[in-house]
Amino acid sequence: MGIHTYFQSLNDLERIIRCPGKFKFEEHSVSAHSWKVVQYAKTLADIEETNGVTVDWKKLYEITSSHDYGEIFIGDIKTPVKHHSLELRAMLQQVEEGMVAHFIDEHIPSEFQPIFRRQLREGKDDSVEGRILEVADKLDQIYEAFTELQRGNTEKEFVVMYRDALIKIKGIQLHCVDYFLQHILPDLVSEGSRSPIDIEKITKEALAT
Amino acid sequence: MGIHTYFQSLNDLERIIRCPGKFKFEEHSVSAHSWKVVQYAKTLADIEETNGVTVDWKKLYEITSSHDYGEIFIGDIKTPVKHHSLELRAMLQQVEEGMVAHFIDEHIPSEFQPIFRRQLREGKDDSVEGRILEVADKLDQIYEAFTELQRGNTEKEFVVMYRDALIKIKGIQLHCVDYFLQHILPDLVSEGSRSPIDIEKITKEALAT
Amino acid sequence: MGIHTYFQSLNDLERIIRCPGKFKFEEHSVSAHSWKVVQYAKTLADIEETNGVTVDWKKLYEITSSHDYGEIFIGDIKTPVKHHSLELRAMLQQVEEGMVAHFIDEHIPSEFQPIFRRQLREGKDDSVEGRILEVADKLDQIYEAFTELQRGNTEKEFVVMYRDALIKIKGIQLHCVDYFLQHILPDLVSEGSRSPIDIEKITKEALAT
Amino acid sequence: MGIHTYFQSLNDLERIIRCPGKFKFEEHSVSAHSWKVVQYAKTLADIEETNGVTVDWKKLYEITSSHDYGEIFIGDIKTPVKHHSLELRAMLQQVEEGMVAHFIDEHIPSEFQPIFRRQLREGKDDSVEGRILEVADKLDQIYEAFTELQRGNTEKEFVVMYRDALIKIKGIQLHCVDYFLQHILPDLVSEGSRSPIDIEKITKEALAT
Amino acid sequence: MGIHTYFQSLNDLERIIRCPGKFKFEEHSVSAHSWKVVQYAKTLADIEETNGVTVDWKKLYEITSSHDYGEIFIGDIKTPVKHHSLELRAMLQQVEEGMVAHFIDEHIPSEFQPIFRRQLREGKDDSVEGRILEVADKLDQIYEAFTELQRGNTEKEFVVMYRDALIKIKGIQLHCVDYFLQHILPDLVSEGSRSPIDIEKITKEALAT
Amino acid sequence: MGIHTYFQSLNDLERIIRCPGKFKFEEHSVSAHSWKVVQYAKTLADIEETNGVTVDWKKLYEITSSHDYGEIFIGDIKTPVKHHSLELRAMLQQVEEGMVAHFIDEHIPSEFQPIFRRQLREGKDDSVEGRILEVADKLDQIYEAFTELQRGNTEKEFVVMYRDALIKIKGIQLHCVDYFLQHILPDLVSEGSRSPIDIEKITKEALAT
Repeated sequence: MGIHTYFQSLNDLERIIRCPGKFKFEEHSVSAHSWKVVQYAKTLADIEETNGVTVDWKKLYEITSSHDYGEIFIGDIKTPVKHHSLELRAMLQQVEEGMVAHFIDEHIPSEFQPIFRRQLREGKDDSVEGRILEVADKLDQIYEAFTELQRGNTEKEFVVMYRDALIKIKGIQLHCVDYFLQHILPDLVSEGSRSPIDIEKITKEALAT
Repeated sequence: MGIHTYFQSLNDLERIIRCPGKFKFEEHSVSAHSWKVVQYAKTLADIEETNGVTVDWKKLYEITSSHDYGEIFIGDIKTPVKHHSLELRAMLQQVEEGMVAHFIDEHIPSEFQPIFRRQLREGKDDSVEGRILEVADKLDQIYEAFTELQRGNTEKEFVVMYRDALIKIKGIQLHCVDYFLQHILPDLVSEGSRSPIDIEKITKEALAT
Repeated sequence: MGIHTYFQSLNDLERIIRCPGKFKFEEHSVSAHSWKVVQYAKTLADIEETNGVTVDWKKLYEITSSHDYGEIFIGDIKTPVKHHSLELRAMLQQVEEGMVAHFIDEHIPSEFQPIFRRQLREGKDDSVEGRILEVADKLDQIYEAFTELQRGNTEKEFVVMYRDALIKIKGIQLHCVDYFLQHILPDLVSEGSRSPIDIEKITKEALAT
Repeated sequence: MGIHTYFQSLNDLERIIRCPGKFKFEEHSVSAHSWKVVQYAKTLADIEETNGVTVDWKKLYEITSSHDYGEIFIGDIKTPVKHHSLELRAMLQQVEEGMVAHFIDEHIPSEFQPIFRRQLREGKDDSVEGRILEVADKLDQIYEAFTELQRGNTEKEFVVMYRDALIKIKGIQLHCVDYFLQHILPDLVSEGSRSPIDIEKITKEALAT
Repeated sequence: MGIHTYFQSLNDLERIIRCPGKFKFEEHSVSAHSWKVVQYAKTLADIEETNGVTVDWKKLYEITSSHDYGEIFIGDIKTPVKHHSLELRAMLQQVEEGMVAHFIDEHIPSEFQPIFRRQLREGKDDSVEGRILEVADKLDQIYEAFTELQRGNTEKEFVVMYRDALIKIKGIQLHCVDYFLQHILPDLVSEGSRSPIDIEKITKEALAT
Repeated sequence: MGIHTYFQSLNDLERIIRCPGKFKFEEHSVSAHSWKVVQYAKTLADIEETNGVTVDWKKLYEITSSHDYGEIFIGDIKTPVKHHSLELRAMLQQVEEGMVAHFIDEHIPSEFQPIFRRQLREGKDDSVEGRILEVADKLDQIYEAFTELQRGNTEKEFVVMYRDALIKIKGIQLHCVDYFLQHILPDLVSEGSRSPIDIEKITKEALAT
């Protein structure tokens, strides 16, 4: 079949859970994560524009909304696997891309195939939009980890998740990253101050690396 | 606080359930619905562009991704209420808009307030983008109802939901509506042919009205 | 249809969640909350009777068991909205009452309509029974918030929920309120003493206001 | 401790599931079931009163609201066990009553112990109120089974559950039973007419026994 | 019917929840618990074998995998009831065994009945395998309680559950118990060191009794 | 750390869902599936023994209980991927085995490493035990698919899952396969006869291939 198969498939991402078995307070579906990335990216791009940067909104729309579509085929497993072996992660990436390519060949009408190939490509390149996607994706990792830490989840995993995302973000050159570090992150840290886990200390250490 | 409060709030929409108490097979969060609307709208706009129509992608991005943000305050209740009384629905709409306005005043830094007011406005106007949003929103209603009907949910509610959405869509003048009716809907009906509910008949009746 | 529609509708309240998106440890359905209010009210009324007060049990039965039935139409949203604007809350109350009135007109046989109108009225008046309902309703707010605080939920929301309910209760003139403050609340505070949140301090501050 | 322990315990019934592992479409907590029994009983008693019967509302309140409290200790297992052996069921009943008695002795202040013993007794006696409780309890069994049958659950268990409850109800002498059989049951059967299971036939056979 | 009824019934244990209403962070089904007991027992038996002890693997297989099958009939209620009265617990055990015997008589073909009676007997005897089962069963109680304590569940129940299991285990004469106390338990305590609950202290007190 | 890390990890398999997003009536965790495979295999091996075949119970214990442990790292994705490309499936198998090997090297004490390597190997070889595992694994696929089909799930996926498993089983030379086809399968088909899906026809076609 055609576009119907694609539309229908979107529903399945609502049942694919991020990092299955890890979140203890709030689980997140891949579709909910994708929507939050779209939302963060929109505000991040607004910050860029208010600083005079030109944003290609069509490209940003395409790469943010579909950036995890491939997980429909293999679930959300790249991150935990990556922690153990970059080689195995590369192999998984290849499996996922193979599944996406296969899906487009089989289900998407030929006149739309170039559009779908462009939209479902890896979007995290060096362009402004690619960098905004990277920040937005890591931002959700920060908020997901924060939600666990703030409620007293003492498992080390979420400290690592929070710190790694923060370190990644601060290394990216964007006006919105400056804004995040100066205006958003302090509010987040302040809100987490009643947690039994010292979120402020973890944050400072990450920013100092 | 500022943008942090907004970013943090997005998480709550993952726990707001669409039409609470109605879906029996698969429940849908408002965030998952929002993401699907973003995805449908992208493909619908692609179809418009391939037909020579100019799409304002920034506007489309803004109005699709945030179109149900106000439900963070009052849940997803406008649709069922609307069935009973348009006056009560208008009142609810006013409550929701009041809450959104209040949130922007209290939490969003003044330099971003105009941007947020524009993004969180009602987006279903007569522009191409507004009409695409309307189609995409109704499309998800079709897929949500279809998922129940296809699995044998015999409650009348979903027949109504499916039919109303279809009638609404077919009245909108867009190339993508023509494409949907000719190329997508037939595949959907065909996939539903093993259901104990006669989806084909319901579809034909809706298209004939 | 008739009473069947009403009986059937009760089932839906089992899927309506209290304060959607807020509780992180244990969610509560409106039907479970309603039952707990019935149970608290029964014991509170027993305490009144042992102090020589006459209780109209039929009235108490009616107003406690149905006090949140209207949420079947609009979900549990009045409390959060109230925090922001009493005007918007009044408007919502009007929507809910309109939906209830509409439901009775359409579905309840005429010989039972006066009974249903009386049972589904707002029951929190100045009578003994009305005050018992108010205490019982706030008591569940206390227990619901306590359950979150006791397990280390550090979000400010539940401190506010707990404190507001306590302040409301202590202002009501009833023997059972005295009994609660002297004999029940101290046990609750004592049980919460191992929580990272200082429930005793919050309690003392609320009682001192 | 005292009444606090009792109030706190109510919360646990929200996590005790009826017939664990059996319901496939909608699970029911014991607290939600208890609330629905309270609601049905209220309307059933209204029907008695409109037929000139005197109702002891305090007694009805007590026996309906607490009729399954004992399941807090042993879960909802009496019904399935009963199907296999009345002797084993009697033994279970004894265990449950022993747990309730033990709870009252240990936790309820002595001045309230007689009240709690009366409220937590088996309420299904031959009085009007006892018979109303029996009807209300079976009525929820009918609605719970109907919800499964209506959605196409073909497991024999729910046919048995529906039929047994109906046979039990029709054997009880009450005005409200007549009303149910003449005015409520036909609407229910009519609503179930699109189910793949022949609910009308099952109903007629049960009424003919 | 025959073996099919037995195979089909296994599925139901996936919906039977351990200690219903008690676990707040992670619920456990009886089937998942049973699998973990099988896994622990395998490693415990490996430790015995490396110490020169002969293990009857067929017996171990039989008694570990089926040790809670009887809960399919009455749920997981023996443990909480036991805390209150050993007499009531014995009665429940009798009910469960009666249900199992009844099931075998009715559903298992006669040529397999002796095998099923042997497999579904109480396996915790004085043999090596019986003692390994006892340790493995208690080990899961430790891990289940630890998971709650580690995340800051301050309810006394889980401290008792953890301590009772530990005291039981340390009284059993097996090489694998020594290994557990010297090599596994210290790692567990160390991992729990960031919890607001002093797991190390609870452990030391239990070991000192 | 050591064995503790392994024991602790077992808990995570309780949160890993089989075929995420596919089952609509009952989801299955990998741990529950693993337990059912252990149970089926035990009875299948009993049937072999009653036919005079010698069973190595230690080997059977090891390979059945751990046969899906590797999914702790990458979830349950091999089956859906396999349908599209055997090459991609082989790559995934390699990733999973790499993760398991890495886990043993890092966490299991050296004296137990050979035991764990043997237990966590692929167990589906040509031995009696390897073939029993293959049958037991496919048997659960049959029961999982049957549970969906019996309740009226009309999605083609489960027809394929049921048929493929049946075809695989009937090609394996074992006494227990004969017993299954003659004595168990007919009961299953008979129980499914009220489903809107023609399970009998699907079964006959699969057996005729």
